[in-house]
Amino acid sequence: MARPVDKSAVPAVTVPRLTVYLRKLRELQARGVDRVSSRQLAGLIDLNAAQIRKDFSYFGEFGTRGVGYEVDRLVDEIKRCLGLERSWNVVIIGAGSLGTALARYRGFAEQGFKLVAMFDASQRKVGVSFGDGRTIRDVADLEPFCCEQRVDIAIVAVPAHAAQSIIDRLVGLEPAQRVRAILNFAPVKVFAPRDVIVRQVDFSSELMSLSFYLDRES
Amino acid sequence: MARPVDKSAVPAVTVPRLTVYLRKLRELQARGVDRVSSRQLAGLIDLNAAQIRKDFSYFGEFGTRGVGYEVDRLVDEIKRCLGLERSWNVVIIGAGSLGTALARYRGFAEQGFKLVAMFDASQRKVGVSFGDGRTIRDVADLEPFCCEQRVDIAIVAVPAHAAQSIIDRLVGLEPAQRVRAILNFAPVKVFAPRDVIVRQVDFSSELMSLSFYLDRES
Repeated sequence: MARPVDKSAVPAVTVPRLTVYLRKLRELQARGVDRVSSRQLAGLIDLNAAQIRKDFSYFGEFGTRGVGYEVDRLVDEIKRCLGLERSWNVVIIGAGSLGTALARYRGFAEQGFKLVAMFDASQRKVGVSFGDGRTIRDVADLEPFCCEQRVDIAIVAVPAHAAQSIIDRLVGLEPAQRVRAILNFAPVKVFAPRDVIVRQVDFSSELMSLSFYLDRES
Repeated sequence: MARPVDKSAVPAVTVPRLTVYLRKLRELQARGVDRVSSRQLAGLIDLNAAQIRKDFSYFGEFGTRGVGYEVDRLVDEIKRCLGLERSWNVVIIGAGSLGTALARYRGFAEQGFKLVAMFDASQRKVGVSFGDGRTIRDVADLEPFCCEQRVDIAIVAVPAHAAQSIIDRLVGLEPAQRVRAILNFAPVKVFAPRDVIVRQVDFSSELMSLSFYLDRES
C-alpha cells in the first residue's frame, strides 16, 4: 500500500470520521483483533456500514466480502491519510484551567502530538512546572521560541479578548517560522491569513446544539 | 414573528452555524447596530452571503434588499430556533482540570445554561467550592440529585474508563428524571439509548483534523 492517498479527494466531512475509525481500530488492535467487517465496525461506532465502506474507499481500501478489512493495514492507511506518521510540535498558549487540562490530555501524545512549550502572560505562572520537568514560559518569548524551534500547531486557550492579538503574533512571523495551524478555544471568532488553518472549539456552541435538539423533541 | 419555526426543516449542518451567527449578532447588538446585510455578516464571520441567506430562510427571515436584516429580530429568531428562550439545567461530572475549566467557562451562563451541580468521585474534592458558594458533590449522589432537581444536560468530564458507566447511570433513571442530553469530553465513544442526545467533544480528533490539512499542504 505504498500508493499515496489523494487527500484532495477526501471530503472535509469525512476527516472527523477518520479520527473516530482510527481510535476504534486501535482499540481492536490492542485486543488482538486482526480483521473487521464494515458491519462489525458500524455496530461499534454507531455509523452505517455503507458509509464506512465509502469512507475507506477514499484511500483505496476495499474489504473482502466475508473476510473484512485487515485492522493493521487500515490503521496504517488512516494514519497516513491523517498525516499522523509524522510528529507535530504543539504549543499551548494560556495556562489557565483549560490550558492545564489540555496539557494533561493523554490523547495528544498517543496520537503523535508533541507538546513542546506552554506560555502564559502571568508572572505568577511563568516558571511553574507543567509536567516532565518543563516549565511555563513567558508569552513575551513566543516569537523567539517559534524562531528557535519548529511549531506546527498552536493551541490558543487565552481569554476571548486576548485571542486575536496572540494569533496575529503567531501568523506575523516570517514564513519559515510561522505557525501554520491554530486550534482556538477562546470563545471568539478569530481571523488568520488564508494559508493558516484555524479550527475553533466552542463549548457553548456545543451546548447550544444540544439545546436545539432538546427543544425540538420536547 | 410568532409563527413557530419548523425545526425538522433545519439541517444538522446548519445548527452549528446558527450558534456562530448568534454570537456575532449579539456583538452587533452590544455595539448598537440595528441592521445588518448578509454581505456585511459574511465579512464578519468568514462565510458566504448566499449561505447566510439560505440559513436564515429556514426560520422565515428574509432580509430586505438595501436594508438588510433587523439585528434584534434575527437574535430572537435564532434563540427561539436553538431553544435558548428557556433555561437549561446543566451538571458537570468530573472536577478535574477540564471539569473545572468548564465550570468557569463564561459562555455558559450568557447563553442561558445554568450550572446546577458539579460531581466528583474523589473524597478530596467533595465539599470543595466551585464558585458562587456551591460545593462539589459526591458522584454517589448523582441519582438522588437528578430525582430531586431537573437536569437537562450532563457534561461528562471524567477519565475515559469511567465515562460509559456514568452515562449508564444517567440514562438508567426513570423517564421523568432521565438526563436527555449528554456532552461527553472523555476521549472514548460512548453509547446511550436513541432518545438521549449525545455529542462528543474530542480534542485529539480536532488536532488530527489539523494534521490532515497540514500534511496535505506540505
